[in-house]
Amino acid sequence: MSAAANTVMPHALPAPARPGMRIEEVDTPALLLDLDAFERNLRRLHTTLQGRTVRVRPHAKSHKCPQIALRQIALGAVGVCCQKVSEARALVQGGVRDVLIANEVVGAAKLQRLAELGREAQVGVCVDDAANVRELAAAVKAAGSNLDVYVELDVGARRCGVEPGKPALVLAQAVADAGLRFAGIHAYQGAAQHLRTPAERTAAIGKAVEMVQATVGLLRKAGLDPEIITGAGTGTYLLEAGSGVYNEIQPGSYVFMDADYGRNLGDDGLPVHEFEQSLFILATVMSRPIRERAVVDVGLKAHSVDSGMPAVFGLDGARYARASDEHGVIELAGPADVRLGQKIRLVPGHCDPTVNLYDWLVCYRGERVEELWPVSARGAFY
Amino acid sequence: MSAAANTVMPHALPAPARPGMRIEEVDTPALLLDLDAFERNLRRLHTTLQGRTVRVRPHAKSHKCPQIALRQIALGAVGVCCQKVSEARALVQGGVRDVLIANEVVGAAKLQRLAELGREAQVGVCVDDAANVRELAAAVKAAGSNLDVYVELDVGARRCGVEPGKPALVLAQAVADAGLRFAGIHAYQGAAQHLRTPAERTAAIGKAVEMVQATVGLLRKAGLDPEIITGAGTGTYLLEAGSGVYNEIQPGSYVFMDADYGRNLGDDGLPVHEFEQSLFILATVMSRPIRERAVVDVGLKAHSVDSGMPAVFGLDGARYARASDEHGVIELAGPADVRLGQKIRLVPGHCDPTVNLYDWLVCYRGERVEELWPVSARGAFY
Repeated sequence: MSAAANTVMPHALPAPARPGMRIEEVDTPALLLDLDAFERNLRRLHTTLQGRTVRVRPHAKSHKCPQIALRQIALGAVGVCCQKVSEARALVQGGVRDVLIANEVVGAAKLQRLAELGREAQVGVCVDDAANVRELAAAVKAAGSNLDVYVELDVGARRCGVEPGKPALVLAQAVADAGLRFAGIHAYQGAAQHLRTPAERTAAIGKAVEMVQATVGLLRKAGLDPEIITGAGTGTYLLEAGSGVYNEIQPGSYVFMDADYGRNLGDDGLPVHEFEQSLFILATVMSRPIRERAVVDVGLKAHSVDSGMPAVFGLDGARYARASDEHGVIELAGPADVRLGQKIRLVPGHCDPTVNLYDWLVCYRGERVEELWPVSARGAFY
Repeated sequence: MSAAANTVMPHALPAPARPGMRIEEVDTPALLLDLDAFERNLRRLHTTLQGRTVRVRPHAKSHKCPQIALRQIALGAVGVCCQKVSEARALVQGGVRDVLIANEVVGAAKLQRLAELGREAQVGVCVDDAANVRELAAAVKAAGSNLDVYVELDVGARRCGVEPGKPALVLAQAVADAGLRFAGIHAYQGAAQHLRTPAERTAAIGKAVEMVQATVGLLRKAGLDPEIITGAGTGTYLLEAGSGVYNEIQPGSYVFMDADYGRNLGDDGLPVHEFEQSLFILATVMSRPIRERAVVDVGLKAHSVDSGMPAVFGLDGARYARASDEHGVIELAGPADVRLGQKIRLVPGHCDPTVNLYDWLVCYRGERVEELWPVSARGAFY
């Protein structure tokens, strides 16, 4: 049987809503964006940075949505980051002119697509390996394009990146020697974003800043001045912004927030409320078998559980206890005034991989759907 | 700004492979299907059931792929199950003529789509609420269609379903009174599938069978003979098939298997090897920062961690230790003969929600890609 016979191609799914609908009428599962809260979050980021001179380059891996990237840029962001070439391409096709792939790109086919994208927009990429630098240089030459190349440092996340100091200098020199533009240092301490207390976050970023500073000193001495020092996330960006070393920050989740970020604490020992929850999953109660249990139509295929279960929003005594593929079991401790068919809002445990499960953001204001934005880079993991 | 301006619609992504390619050339992340192992699994199910008279109705929520459903039916399955109306529609559009939605469908819009689908194929659905039965009857009447209606029993999964015994009888009577066709009992003990020892699984299904048997007795006495008693999954289907009560089984994961099913034990205390692992994620090593660590391009957006991390296939001493959005960190204990750019196969922790992240199954035999099958019902959670 050929792949074409008797087959629906993927993604013939209709959108879950139309502009003008009431939230109650939206099909579920749906990803809702509270536009008022979202717009306050966008502005709030810049308010918190007043008096700082850092550039803002929000991470688009959280939203994967050109409509959001363009709004971030309109408010002053220099561009956005993402993690994959196919994500970058979706963003460029959506009108974004400056994208940093805050990640390594490995393999001839991906490098070719990356280099070709460099003809259409300002594109940056990270490196942590000398052989990869040579392949990148060859791809850029073949495409007749140009890229900004950042040396990635491992400043404590124990993921990608070269060790700070000498290894970074050697690699930066390799970038320059290969005829590529050495644009700066990428140093993201991802492991620090969800440390719960300010003291832990401050200590982790303090160490990262020291490593970056020492590396920058070495590079300058060697005549390889890194123009941009970029990194940071929603959990720590004020620390990097105030470090005197970083001159660009990459917060992503601040546009949406999630249940996991909601567990970060501030100086007063209470949850940080810098940004508001703007992202929700709309669920329908599809079974009401006993007084203490409601089952919703939002399970593992509609949210990611890597950072725990979603929180139930605005329903006292209700707890999303467990998920199976297409079900979520909500335990009800309080008065059981939950009816079959009721629409319930959930706060996802982790926004990024949850957004990746949806084709559309249903944007609402008050109780009305205002617009639908496509998650254009959904599934763009190439 | 309108939703149409400056936007790529979702899903302009190219397929990761072409027929004839070597696996080494497949773009990553990719979902690979070993056709030889897959075909053996399809046949093996029927071999294990020789001498039984149960109907086989595999669960398509695992694969979401009409090409697979049609192969299951060609080998003797009566049809397939799925969980959502939109999934059922994708399967019917792909050529499947008999689909049971092994789940409740709630809400006017979904019920309308369900009832309309009943005009195109043999469609079944579950119920666990009398008001829902009345709405279903109205939708079926409006659509001029017919559906098979199953009363869902909670036999220990503590999810949806009415209590066994009297509540089931009352609901079956409501189905008949509403002019709907009462087709039988749906009794799936989902919580039993991953109990690790045969004794635990046997005990759990034994209890479920008792509850079903008592309920069937009540129904028969009331003149509401349930024609079909359906349920079971890959972890327990031989128990239901041998119960003398169930006459239809719904295994799903057997076509693929996953790391979590790989932890189920048999009578000898060793992992059950009834079915072979046929599903893999192909990853590329995109960073090789230190001897003990390789980072692959397969993270939370390319597999589901609800049942744990993926297993690394065929690489001694390698352990997929942790995932972030687009990265997987592999710790290497043995000789570190892993090179940058190397393709590595992973066994997903849980097949169903992992398959849901991919548009294509890259089907191979030996080391060559043979066909690409679209995951037509990917994202079909409506």
